[in-house]
Amino acid sequence: MNRVKVGILGATGMVGQRFVQLLANHPWFQVTEVAASERSAGKTYGEVMEGRWKLTTEIPHEVRSFVVKECLPGLDCRLVFSALDADIAGPIEKAFAAAGYVVSSNSRNHRMEPDVPLLIPEVNPEHLGLIAVQKKNRGWEGMIVTNPNCSTIHLVMVLKPLMQFGLSQLFVTTMQALSGAGYPGVASLDILDNVIPYIGGEEEKVQTETLKLLGAFARGKVTPAPIVLSAHCNRVSVSDGHTECVSVKLDAKPSLANVTRAMQDFNPLNGMGLPSSPAHPIIVRQEANRPQPRMDRDLEKGMASVVGRIRECPLLGYKFVLLGHNTIRGAAGAAILNAELMVKNGYIDRYDRTEI
Amino acid sequence: MNRVKVGILGATGMVGQRFVQLLANHPWFQVTEVAASERSAGKTYGEVMEGRWKLTTEIPHEVRSFVVKECLPGLDCRLVFSALDADIAGPIEKAFAAAGYVVSSNSRNHRMEPDVPLLIPEVNPEHLGLIAVQKKNRGWEGMIVTNPNCSTIHLVMVLKPLMQFGLSQLFVTTMQALSGAGYPGVASLDILDNVIPYIGGEEEKVQTETLKLLGAFARGKVTPAPIVLSAHCNRVSVSDGHTECVSVKLDAKPSLANVTRAMQDFNPLNGMGLPSSPAHPIIVRQEANRPQPRMDRDLEKGMASVVGRIRECPLLGYKFVLLGHNTIRGAAGAAILNAELMVKNGYIDRYDRTEI
Amino acid sequence: MNRVKVGILGATGMVGQRFVQLLANHPWFQVTEVAASERSAGKTYGEVMEGRWKLTTEIPHEVRSFVVKECLPGLDCRLVFSALDADIAGPIEKAFAAAGYVVSSNSRNHRMEPDVPLLIPEVNPEHLGLIAVQKKNRGWEGMIVTNPNCSTIHLVMVLKPLMQFGLSQLFVTTMQALSGAGYPGVASLDILDNVIPYIGGEEEKVQTETLKLLGAFARGKVTPAPIVLSAHCNRVSVSDGHTECVSVKLDAKPSLANVTRAMQDFNPLNGMGLPSSPAHPIIVRQEANRPQPRMDRDLEKGMASVVGRIRECPLLGYKFVLLGHNTIRGAAGAAILNAELMVKNGYIDRYDRTEI
Amino acid sequence: MNRVKVGILGATGMVGQRFVQLLANHPWFQVTEVAASERSAGKTYGEVMEGRWKLTTEIPHEVRSFVVKECLPGLDCRLVFSALDADIAGPIEKAFAAAGYVVSSNSRNHRMEPDVPLLIPEVNPEHLGLIAVQKKNRGWEGMIVTNPNCSTIHLVMVLKPLMQFGLSQLFVTTMQALSGAGYPGVASLDILDNVIPYIGGEEEKVQTETLKLLGAFARGKVTPAPIVLSAHCNRVSVSDGHTECVSVKLDAKPSLANVTRAMQDFNPLNGMGLPSSPAHPIIVRQEANRPQPRMDRDLEKGMASVVGRIRECPLLGYKFVLLGHNTIRGAAGAAILNAELMVKNGYIDRYDRTEI
Repeated sequence: MNRVKVGILGATGMVGQRFVQLLANHPWFQVTEVAASERSAGKTYGEVMEGRWKLTTEIPHEVRSFVVKECLPGLDCRLVFSALDADIAGPIEKAFAAAGYVVSSNSRNHRMEPDVPLLIPEVNPEHLGLIAVQKKNRGWEGMIVTNPNCSTIHLVMVLKPLMQFGLSQLFVTTMQALSGAGYPGVASLDILDNVIPYIGGEEEKVQTETLKLLGAFARGKVTPAPIVLSAHCNRVSVSDGHTECVSVKLDAKPSLANVTRAMQDFNPLNGMGLPSSPAHPIIVRQEANRPQPRMDRDLEKGMASVVGRIRECPLLGYKFVLLGHNTIRGAAGAAILNAELMVKNGYIDRYDRTEI
Repeated sequence: MNRVKVGILGATGMVGQRFVQLLANHPWFQVTEVAASERSAGKTYGEVMEGRWKLTTEIPHEVRSFVVKECLPGLDCRLVFSALDADIAGPIEKAFAAAGYVVSSNSRNHRMEPDVPLLIPEVNPEHLGLIAVQKKNRGWEGMIVTNPNCSTIHLVMVLKPLMQFGLSQLFVTTMQALSGAGYPGVASLDILDNVIPYIGGEEEKVQTETLKLLGAFARGKVTPAPIVLSAHCNRVSVSDGHTECVSVKLDAKPSLANVTRAMQDFNPLNGMGLPSSPAHPIIVRQEANRPQPRMDRDLEKGMASVVGRIRECPLLGYKFVLLGHNTIRGAAGAAILNAELMVKNGYIDRYDRTEI
Repeated sequence: MNRVKVGILGATGMVGQRFVQLLANHPWFQVTEVAASERSAGKTYGEVMEGRWKLTTEIPHEVRSFVVKECLPGLDCRLVFSALDADIAGPIEKAFAAAGYVVSSNSRNHRMEPDVPLLIPEVNPEHLGLIAVQKKNRGWEGMIVTNPNCSTIHLVMVLKPLMQFGLSQLFVTTMQALSGAGYPGVASLDILDNVIPYIGGEEEKVQTETLKLLGAFARGKVTPAPIVLSAHCNRVSVSDGHTECVSVKLDAKPSLANVTRAMQDFNPLNGMGLPSSPAHPIIVRQEANRPQPRMDRDLEKGMASVVGRIRECPLLGYKFVLLGHNTIRGAAGAAILNAELMVKNGYIDRYDRTEI
Repeated sequence: MNRVKVGILGATGMVGQRFVQLLANHPWFQVTEVAASERSAGKTYGEVMEGRWKLTTEIPHEVRSFVVKECLPGLDCRLVFSALDADIAGPIEKAFAAAGYVVSSNSRNHRMEPDVPLLIPEVNPEHLGLIAVQKKNRGWEGMIVTNPNCSTIHLVMVLKPLMQFGLSQLFVTTMQALSGAGYPGVASLDILDNVIPYIGGEEEKVQTETLKLLGAFARGKVTPAPIVLSAHCNRVSVSDGHTECVSVKLDAKPSLANVTRAMQDFNPLNGMGLPSSPAHPIIVRQEANRPQPRMDRDLEKGMASVVGRIRECPLLGYKFVLLGHNTIRGAAGAAILNAELMVKNGYIDRYDRTEI
């Protein structure tokens, strides 16, 4: 099978680097273009990344020699992954969609638009139904699909199997990794021996995206889930991996064992053969003091959500700890899995049949 | 005025060192004895602390030459501050109280006993009324008074001025400093680039001590406050200063401005002249990203609770961030302030009139 | 005595903040002006520093309301302390000197110019003799005096008392603090769980400034000291305090005890009454594992150089560890002490007699 | 080919865990025994390691169920890898050698004994000739072979290709990782925002082991290399990976290009087929600020020594930065590669022919 040609918008940032890393040797996708700001355009990716590549694996050999392009339609690919900064992502992604590209975006700009799917393949694949609406509304040849914020995606992954128990209230406090702020991001003097109890816009994202993700899709629109939730978001001195303390109210009052089993058994993509799909999307650890970011963030190559300490909450009934890799499943890996689902479901195939 | 002679039990640990540091040049108390385990007894404090003194100020000159005693009654003092480990504090503190000493303890052993005051001078000074009950129950010449756990004390300090608004529900997630685990405490390999989402027994302490502290004292006993609360406790890579994310339900639905003002105006010890009493027990910061442990833990010499980000909570109504020094106001400083209040109220004076 | 009016150039950066902090309540100097880039000019210092003040003491009350000026002559002061970035400090400092101001600069731009004193009051006060040369060469009403690089100053402080033993060769490896890179400076993702074995230009500064500082002043010029030295400079995850591993060759082959005593007894400013002069400029610690940045950087209010582990070196004869605060004695405090010496020696008095 | 049965002594510590991890699926060795202290003996390895396994990969499934034995001869294996603490390793290792086992030890106890090879396969394979001497001296059926200290091995790896240029003097300052101190090892309160400029016995090890490793083997003994060297050893806040700043004197005065090439071309094991041998034992990085522990420690699966910043040293002529993984190539991986060389050279085959 030929591989789908893909481009990466914002290929030089932290999430862009993850796209480059994770797409090396991908069985379905072949990176043919890397694009970034005007400042980088015209140089090879290897030149541009001198001193800026922050991952511990080397830059894939074939991408090193690619000439970086500007983020403008005309790239030789069918699918673009967007890791653009929010202050520029909006119009650029629209331009690509209008020009017929499939855009799988990690940026926040279009996530909450009514006709844009905010997608987690394990959670709400039916929301892809919004694409038909989007195409009709916008008159686009292409389309935009988005993945959630890095904290939200792991939270919602774990909430989904609890929906059957009547999830109605939710409390979450995050302790988020430095890589979530990009590069250079958080100054070392601000975080050494410190906690920063504020991340701009983050609490709002968690509080709104969660409801759309868990919402019902019917008659061309998504109705937000009727859940009341509150988020406290903090930055801590961890390189990768967001930790979240979660309390939930489940109206059906299941036993702790049933809650645990529901999480462990949750595996709706099982057997679908999506290349980036983890064998177990939710791993439940039994140790008293896990999950921990340094120990658990790389489970399932960073694509799992790891849960531990499932116990009673005096206030809401149930509480637990959640951990997930923020730039893999929380960003680049999420967008890639979304695109894999779209290939599987024919959304990309329709536009590029000859290449698959 | 002569100073009250005081001893320090467990003087070699992290909290014991804070007692030694904070009592140097104290206007009311004079350290005359330092006691520790049998292993240390017989050597000078300076010898014992070689390589173990972890504070950035030097060991006070006069204490350096003290011979360390065993933790047995017979010490030349009227008041003992206890920084003993919980696995030995119980019987030792009782023995001192039985022998006529006033024991101001930071250990958890007796905190929840019905006739032992769990005291914060700004919050529940009337709980000192339990001493009469204690003396009657136990037949002791002396007495035991305790201060709360390092997370709980800052939380309750800030909750007290909210009680007037009908505090009924409460959610707290802590991010606690390394010094709270003592020395050597947390291994560096366990916390570098990591979060540990578990501290043994801590959530239970926060959930029970809070209710006793805010409980009503009447007819010789404390009735726990009718509040439902839940705590998530985490260890983070911070040397000193516990950060807490708090959501509260206030039935009277005050404005955010009124909540802020209630905290800022809270100062019940104002004018009493207790030497360790902070000018402002609660400091409310206006910056978007404060309080932070490295920046705010030393405000009021570590005796303040620092609040920020007072805002609406979709779930409980109000949320904010709280920060406090865990080994000063959260431990040694708390026990010292308790003893100061007891001097002021005549509890120590009665047993040692000649020395004050 | 009236205080000398002083201005701070570059008052918003890390070193500029230290100037503001250290000059609060200074007995000889009164801050009357704070200046920074055009971007900040016109706002109050308090407004500009919102979110940028990184010290744990609060902004001094009186400076908070100062209107920030541009870095142009015309400021109402006689003396300016310069914490300007090297890319702009050169012409600005010259303009101030030409306009009659005394400039005490922490910037590197003029340090190695033959007629500019590179000064450490304890080490080479006679180099102030260059001022007469400078004034003649340049035709300036004012003057420029500089202090060394933050690593160099502590190194040279400790080498000075060893000069009597015939210091001829020297090896130094530094482990430098984050604050030395300014703010935002080092990205947290670059230094968490890491060491950066490179600081641009730093090794060259150590290798050249050391020779000028220890050089002989005669007939209007400084002859570099005939010492061969090599520096390795590294960045480590420490907020403040540079640690240096030093090996030296001393041709006179003194005993280790004599080396120790020479350092401990070194105190050439003793009795001169300079306000920022430490009681002991060099402190020698006896513990096996000291000095350490977190424990020793604040000794003598950050104005001391702290030495430990004086022992034999198989290669050069003697080795030891050195520690010093990089933004106090290594920057702002150094420039202030230089200015105090200039007041004492009449260099500032001559221009501003009425105010002292 | 049957695999050689191997046991791991001290299997529960940090280095013991690395042995367990690295030997999983080893093509020549099969772990059949894990041994540790009396306290652990009798339980399964999985039980014992509950909460003590500190690596981010899981415990290999087959080892999890092994019953931990005491460290006494009688284990069912031919080869033992020793990760024992130095305070007990001496007699235990001798007992195993006397009982006929081949002991590949990471402990320091026997390293400097004249008839014990201190071995790096790339550097001094001819030192294996000491085994015949050892067997004759001791009358052992088995034998002891050791690998160097974690700092020394990477240093000597890089010095070996420089020997051809007449290496005569050497200066090294190390910045060593926390895992080198074992677990729990360094307390978090001692290293957060700090450097510890002392590691007990480490400087002596570097200064003596280096000379033996580079020494000439002839007539049954090793003559130490005639090099004068000095080491400064420091602990820094890094999980894995020792960084070393090195200056060397090379009497032949090669060009920097020739020094670089000598390191890059050094590959004496090339083509021998040892399973743990890295493709490139020395990697030279060209970036201005590399190597760095977080970025480079895992190159060649932790088996490489990584060099950068090769430049002139004003004092000795040449300087560079060196980085290596301390618990892989610096400990367990070193002992495994030593054993592989011994299999290749027939030292193990002779005692256990049927199994290879």
